[in-house]
Amino acid sequence: MHKDLQKYQDLHSISRRTALLQGISHLLEWDQETYMPSDASAIRGEQLETMAGLLHEKRTGKEFTSALSKLIDLKTGEISSKDLNTSQVSALKRWRRDYIHATALPKEFVEEFARLSSQSLEVWKKARADNAYHHFAPFLDKIISMNRKKAEYLGYKDHPYDALLDLYEPENNKEKTTILFNSLKKFLVPLLKKVSVAKQISNDFLFGNFDHQKQLDYSRQLLDSIGYVTIHGRLDTSAHPFSTSLHPTDSRITTRLHSKSLMSSILSTLHEGGHALYEQGLPTEHFGSPLGEAISLGMHESQSRWWETRIGQSKAFWQHQLPILKKHFKSLNDLSLDDFYKAINKVQPSLIRVEADEMTYPLHVILRTELECALIDGSLSVRDLPEAWNAKMQELVGVTPPTNSDGCLQDVHWSMGAIGYFPTYVLGNLYGAHLFQSFEKDHPDWTSNVAEGNLKFIKTWLNDAVYKHGREYNSLELLEKRTGKEFTSKAYIEYLQKKYGEIYQL
Amino acid sequence: MHKDLQKYQDLHSISRRTALLQGISHLLEWDQETYMPSDASAIRGEQLETMAGLLHEKRTGKEFTSALSKLIDLKTGEISSKDLNTSQVSALKRWRRDYIHATALPKEFVEEFARLSSQSLEVWKKARADNAYHHFAPFLDKIISMNRKKAEYLGYKDHPYDALLDLYEPENNKEKTTILFNSLKKFLVPLLKKVSVAKQISNDFLFGNFDHQKQLDYSRQLLDSIGYVTIHGRLDTSAHPFSTSLHPTDSRITTRLHSKSLMSSILSTLHEGGHALYEQGLPTEHFGSPLGEAISLGMHESQSRWWETRIGQSKAFWQHQLPILKKHFKSLNDLSLDDFYKAINKVQPSLIRVEADEMTYPLHVILRTELECALIDGSLSVRDLPEAWNAKMQELVGVTPPTNSDGCLQDVHWSMGAIGYFPTYVLGNLYGAHLFQSFEKDHPDWTSNVAEGNLKFIKTWLNDAVYKHGREYNSLELLEKRTGKEFTSKAYIEYLQKKYGEIYQL
Repeated sequence: MHKDLQKYQDLHSISRRTALLQGISHLLEWDQETYMPSDASAIRGEQLETMAGLLHEKRTGKEFTSALSKLIDLKTGEISSKDLNTSQVSALKRWRRDYIHATALPKEFVEEFARLSSQSLEVWKKARADNAYHHFAPFLDKIISMNRKKAEYLGYKDHPYDALLDLYEPENNKEKTTILFNSLKKFLVPLLKKVSVAKQISNDFLFGNFDHQKQLDYSRQLLDSIGYVTIHGRLDTSAHPFSTSLHPTDSRITTRLHSKSLMSSILSTLHEGGHALYEQGLPTEHFGSPLGEAISLGMHESQSRWWETRIGQSKAFWQHQLPILKKHFKSLNDLSLDDFYKAINKVQPSLIRVEADEMTYPLHVILRTELECALIDGSLSVRDLPEAWNAKMQELVGVTPPTNSDGCLQDVHWSMGAIGYFPTYVLGNLYGAHLFQSFEKDHPDWTSNVAEGNLKFIKTWLNDAVYKHGREYNSLELLEKRTGKEFTSKAYIEYLQKKYGEIYQL
Repeated sequence: MHKDLQKYQDLHSISRRTALLQGISHLLEWDQETYMPSDASAIRGEQLETMAGLLHEKRTGKEFTSALSKLIDLKTGEISSKDLNTSQVSALKRWRRDYIHATALPKEFVEEFARLSSQSLEVWKKARADNAYHHFAPFLDKIISMNRKKAEYLGYKDHPYDALLDLYEPENNKEKTTILFNSLKKFLVPLLKKVSVAKQISNDFLFGNFDHQKQLDYSRQLLDSIGYVTIHGRLDTSAHPFSTSLHPTDSRITTRLHSKSLMSSILSTLHEGGHALYEQGLPTEHFGSPLGEAISLGMHESQSRWWETRIGQSKAFWQHQLPILKKHFKSLNDLSLDDFYKAINKVQPSLIRVEADEMTYPLHVILRTELECALIDGSLSVRDLPEAWNAKMQELVGVTPPTNSDGCLQDVHWSMGAIGYFPTYVLGNLYGAHLFQSFEKDHPDWTSNVAEGNLKFIKTWLNDAVYKHGREYNSLELLEKRTGKEFTSKAYIEYLQKKYGEIYQL
């Protein structure tokens, strides 16, 4: 074997051990939300902290640094070897990127940030429960200023927000995101106004009393139908649904069971199932290298929303599934496909992001993105946040929160120190829609297949388009490579226009 | 603070981080037996191997070695500080002992041993299923010779078996064990003969069809009644019952559910519950130091058997519990306490250790101990093992296995490389009986309390006698300190004699 290939394999094998440890850390988190004894959280916190310390050590320590720098110049990014293939060259660039991020922040800063976030999380929980924004405000203030400092450490060209966004969505920036989000906003706000004066849809039958075990049985059947490999994962329940992966052969999800709301567990299962399909589909031979990892949070979200909305809220899907659902829940017996389809797609402007429908959801996220940008560059102060939030809610969604708990205190993200995370939720929808065009071209008859209950070909297509590439390309590269088209918000806007135009007869 | 105290705290804090990692490794094992996806075992193996490597590094690395050697001379065991209390001095001795063991075996040897064990385990599984001892024999041969080599590395005075036994039961040796086991054998073999010609007991009602959920509900109630802290643990089901502890606030157990056998889950729950009570009772402030650890496998077994046999198979216990059990299982409705008590204590010589009653169980273990001693010193060859096994089974238990699968292939231990482990099963019973004398002196009225369903005072007593000391004393020190009497097999023999004398009217 050529020397450089040997060096590449050495690097991969060091990195693979780190990935094993990362998976173990994920198991600790999974267990914490599912089966951990209720009074074991203090020691679990210490276990997670120990693992985080170990992982940081492995990602920045001598062994890894030395192996990496044998193949790529850590300062310039130059790769001298001619014996590596393009995938390997790409992997080296990703490894270097991660290394630069991992080493950019001084240890004391990371520790202080971790302490602040963990404190803020507790303060936020209480402030939200008590509707006491003024208790949370001083902590948010510190979080904002530490995030500014973080941006300085990480470096950026135009706006400090660029550095933060780039952490969650590599090679993205404020300017690109603003263009996308503005076009979306310009389309959605007037559309929402039209819908609100259109004939209203009834969805009462989606609320009632739905047996937990039946919800779970139905969810399992759904997972199986979309191609989730059950011997490589499991479905449990938790307060907040999530997915976690230890390895492609161990990718677990949870769903939320609400007695009163039928669609809650169904859509959570499809959403988390979409995340898990991506993780299960990553190439195992590259486990531990960037070629065995997902591209970004945004691309991950494109996969979850693909199954939750594009497939899971399509009429074709329910043509096959509704009769099955009726077998589980007799109260739906007399329901027509058309009424069911409209009901699950009902638009209903509301205060809470996680309960939002497909049309208003992006507006919730755009609001947060704009506000956190302004907080970071100082054009908005923490003190004025509640007012700014409420004004923007009225402007974008058309409702005004009666309390801050229903307003700027509703999400956990900022209290955990995460600034720059929110945009990935909308980017995911945009990426998905852009990719879906290509999917429709390859499978013009997809609706008739789906209507017959055949879904496996979708996973096959996604594997080829997304999963199998790992992180060889970044989001934009992958999208443009696959579709042959420049990525914009156009596909998503067209999709929403068509869908809601039909449903609301606009 | 005095300098030596500071050094002690530094050592404890390094060791505490290692204990956190050890707990994480236990979670990986627990998950593997309970909730892990069925096809994730390959990657789980790698995760466990990675953790084992890390733990070894932490226990033998520079940081720990340097902190330990500041307080105790690693060669001589001398402690110069006058500022440490006796518990701390004792902890240092245990730390040194563990360090010597961890560093005694060359890395290549440990790796080779791990490979051999993992291979042998697979070969053994197949050999047992196929009743093909000749397939397993060459592997057992290697395991024996590697254990001989291990004994040489570890060092011993009289017999190589001493070094191996000492790993599982510190400061014990072949000579001491032989004296104890011989006296037990001398008593049990003739007693068993008497029982086998006595009037037989009916226990048919313990076998039938018992609902799994009811078994589990009843087991949970049992755990609660003995003082298991449910917010610091959980009960699940697995193929083989076990207990595992990540920390005193996270000590989990599993039980086995057999539809056909009622007592299987009840006795497993009490057995594993006894292990968990010990772990939950260890002082949390000493977590990560020897003062926060259990003494030995033997002492652990004394705690599990205490609840399984001494309490859980006593008439007093069932005076309170039988009416509760009847509420769960109507088929027992007409049963008298006396008939139930006799049935759960029925002596029935059989081939399989894990199914043995309280009287024949020690004989199964003594057989294995004698055979593994002989294999290690070469007086028995692996080729002649089946014959030796069968002859000894006839001599001690009075039955002869029809196949090797029911004979020398039945246990997993040897295939995993564990030689010297078996004696701890009997030592546990002996320790428990010796301690029980002291318990009866402190609580002469224990049976009337237990008969009324009051059990919590037992845990309080065990906490004071055992749990709270961690590893400050070794087994013998603890036993003699608490009872004021030299430890022998007398207490256990007297207990069995009295119990079975009454049951079988001998």
